Amino acid sequence: MSNSFFINKGPVLFHEILKILKLQNIHNQKNIKLNDIKDLYSANNFDITFFHSKKYSEFAKSTKALFCITTESLKKDLPTTCFPLVVQNVLISVSKITSIFYPDAINDDFDGSVIEINQTNFNDRVIYGKNVLIGKNVSIGKNCKIGHNTIIEKNVSIGDNCSIGSNTIIRNSLISNNVKVLDNCVIGKHGFGFFPNKNKNLRYPHIGIVIIEENCEIGSGSTIDRGSMSNTVIGKNTYLDNQIHIAHNVKIGENSIIAGQVGIAGSSIIGSNVRIGGQAGISGHIKVGNNVEIGGGSGVIKNIPDNTKVMGYPAKNIREFLRDNK
Amino acid sequence: MSNSFFINKGPVLFHEILKILKLQNIHNQKNIKLNDIKDLYSANNFDITFFHSKKYSEFAKSTKALFCITTESLKKDLPTTCFPLVVQNVLISVSKITSIFYPDAINDDFDGSVIEINQTNFNDRVIYGKNVLIGKNVSIGKNCKIGHNTIIEKNVSIGDNCSIGSNTIIRNSLISNNVKVLDNCVIGKHGFGFFPNKNKNLRYPHIGIVIIEENCEIGSGSTIDRGSMSNTVIGKNTYLDNQIHIAHNVKIGENSIIAGQVGIAGSSIIGSNVRIGGQAGISGHIKVGNNVEIGGGSGVIKNIPDNTKVMGYPAKNIREFLRDNK
Amino acid sequence: MSNSFFINKGPVLFHEILKILKLQNIHNQKNIKLNDIKDLYSANNFDITFFHSKKYSEFAKSTKALFCITTESLKKDLPTTCFPLVVQNVLISVSKITSIFYPDAINDDFDGSVIEINQTNFNDRVIYGKNVLIGKNVSIGKNCKIGHNTIIEKNVSIGDNCSIGSNTIIRNSLISNNVKVLDNCVIGKHGFGFFPNKNKNLRYPHIGIVIIEENCEIGSGSTIDRGSMSNTVIGKNTYLDNQIHIAHNVKIGENSIIAGQVGIAGSSIIGSNVRIGGQAGISGHIKVGNNVEIGGGSGVIKNIPDNTKVMGYPAKNIREFLRDNK
Repeated sequence: MSNSFFINKGPVLFHEILKILKLQNIHNQKNIKLNDIKDLYSANNFDITFFHSKKYSEFAKSTKALFCITTESLKKDLPTTCFPLVVQNVLISVSKITSIFYPDAINDDFDGSVIEINQTNFNDRVIYGKNVLIGKNVSIGKNCKIGHNTIIEKNVSIGDNCSIGSNTIIRNSLISNNVKVLDNCVIGKHGFGFFPNKNKNLRYPHIGIVIIEENCEIGSGSTIDRGSMSNTVIGKNTYLDNQIHIAHNVKIGENSIIAGQVGIAGSSIIGSNVRIGGQAGISGHIKVGNNVEIGGGSGVIKNIPDNTKVMGYPAKNIREFLRDNK
Repeated sequence: MSNSFFINKGPVLFHEILKILKLQNIHNQKNIKLNDIKDLYSANNFDITFFHSKKYSEFAKSTKALFCITTESLKKDLPTTCFPLVVQNVLISVSKITSIFYPDAINDDFDGSVIEINQTNFNDRVIYGKNVLIGKNVSIGKNCKIGHNTIIEKNVSIGDNCSIGSNTIIRNSLISNNVKVLDNCVIGKHGFGFFPNKNKNLRYPHIGIVIIEENCEIGSGSTIDRGSMSNTVIGKNTYLDNQIHIAHNVKIGENSIIAGQVGIAGSSIIGSNVRIGGQAGISGHIKVGNNVEIGGGSGVIKNIPDNTKVMGYPAKNIREFLRDNK
Repeated sequence: MSNSFFINKGPVLFHEILKILKLQNIHNQKNIKLNDIKDLYSANNFDITFFHSKKYSEFAKSTKALFCITTESLKKDLPTTCFPLVVQNVLISVSKITSIFYPDAINDDFDGSVIEINQTNFNDRVIYGKNVLIGKNVSIGKNCKIGHNTIIEKNVSIGDNCSIGSNTIIRNSLISNNVKVLDNCVIGKHGFGFFPNKNKNLRYPHIGIVIIEENCEIGSGSTIDRGSMSNTVIGKNTYLDNQIHIAHNVKIGENSIIAGQVGIAGSSIIGSNVRIGGQAGISGHIKVGNNVEIGGGSGVIKNIPDNTKVMGYPAKNIREFLRDNK
């Protein structure tokens, strides 16, 4: 994952990591400095990684990471160059360690660093409304419009010829050329990702961003959450209607059309040339193929292959749905 | 359709229309000036009209328009006084020509012409909050309240005794007396209407408006899109709860009650004295009769006759629904 | 119900009440002053109460109220110390009388009394964004953050360590410590409660408030309505995702997790440790037990006992749902 926005507070002493995970120093390397936490595939020599499910065994076998947060039963798949750090709950441990490297990625308090756009050098280059606020690390291309009361918080790149509506809030997002975001949207906030915990849930970091590719349109009142360990992506020329919710880590392909009030739960992957009718819902961790049509009101709870039309709750082949409901 | 808000840039030279439609000048009338584009019934002598479906044959036979965008197979129904302009895709062609007459009706960039209400002559007559913005061609009746950060963009008429909440955005709308619009609404923006097109969809103009009749209430976070070639209408004394989405061209009758998170897709017509339970969805181009009750969560995908109660997805007679789900 | 926020305009002369209810002065007590309108159980000697359903007979028999709005058939259950005021429609009459005691509880026009936060004594104690507005009777604890354009209207208490996002509107609410409210929310407005009435519906007062207990999180674009005759409550450490609608009088227990776009209709009671999947809907006046799991997209139309997993529309046992949909 490219991660240009969240500042890595590393290197972090291995000693500190052991302390947080409440582990003994079994490796006698407590003064080693670790650069980053990354997935099994991306990690380099002085990184720490994690391995929590058998389905990632192939990646585990060839990881270059020096340390890996994992379980007693999985550790045997790691190469001898990678020291296992055995814990009870891998994801909670990863969450704790990630928050050491990326402390800014946990909370999404409002961005107090913003200033009024007329005090920035966008003053001459952007057409803007009243009360527009701009955060740090923001770039805006040519011929853009930003509506009233809109807040472009920190870590946002907007391409050329974009039109952002009024009362909209954007952070941690890459927006390409010719994108239109309508009014009252919230884009780039952390997702609904946390470890349930009696009396006080434990939020995990969201170090992903939102990527909106060129020619997209995002309808009024929509929310698009940024990813946790990967990005949330809206592909080229995909149009979203009003009041849509796109959860963290979701990826949507190109040329797709998503009608009003649709919700797509975390980490689902939607293909290209997909049409989703109003109020349909897609469960988390689902894969919807290319050229798929999903009828309005459907509830998709399993993968949908390419070139199929589905409808219903749970969604099934549309012919079957229509036959069953004659 | 009454269309007081969008400025007609006509007359347009017939020559220009031929160029856009990539047609030969078969009529030898390229210097004729056309006043407007209208439907078959409304068009006058020097207007252009369109005819894309057999079901409008009766209107076609008596149209007064001088030109008609249509297909090879439909053109035979036109009177001899109306010259056919034969195209591959009537609706795309209509979209292109409409955008010549009404260029302002395609995009809904924020209204940069607004000024602060205390600089208008509403200053003394309206009770208003902080940071209220007013666009051009706005009228507001007696005894109205407008909340903080609310933007009344161009082309809005508000009657007497209306209460508009905070953070709400309204444009291209006629709001009658005693209407209440709550917070965070977006009313009068263009609908989700466009021609899908690989790499770059083609938006069509929305020259309709939103009409909210007297005594209505619109809940917080709702979106009501204006019509494309007709208006979106909320009938007298109809109440909408929070987070409702009303798409373009929808018409709702009087004394209806619509609960939270309902969505009504484009061009559907809902009768009077209708009750719709929470989260129900109505497909596009559906007709729901008078005195109908639709249970919460229902998905309506076909017409519902007067005086019936339905529930389910797809919605069916409520007795049948309850029997099937005992 | 504790009701610290709405000012009781009582005492009210009994004479005035008779006039509004269009009743004869059968009790010859028209100069008596009544202090308040309360439910059968809470009412004291010089209060008026109401009794509209047989299921409250036990409370009726021991009410201390001096007068009771009721029907001809129910009045026999009242003690001799309580004079019945017999009307056609108890709830409409209650609504009329409540609005005499609590005239401020009917309409939710924007709060025009707010001032900019930098003119309040929160200036030094709260970290706040641009254009933050604060109403009357607001308290805010230590270490709180309030985002841009957010409006804390009248009658709000916020605890310590709270983070309120931007573009959010709150009124008539008690928010405990460590609560996070994200962007574009509307909390504490009146619910969708009124008596349908041809040509002009009759709103009834909402004298309840919203209570959000400690450690809760409320997602972006959510709406939580305050109660009518009781409070709307979100229990400790309960997390709500984006675009959720919680209607008036709803009570949710502790440690519950509610995913995006869920809607809970008026007066339903949800237990603790409940998980509700995205887009699920709960009908009004439903009781969902503790430790319940409700699958995404479900429509709950009857009570759910403790420790069960349900899914479907209508929701049924999840094993049954999966079997029926194999």
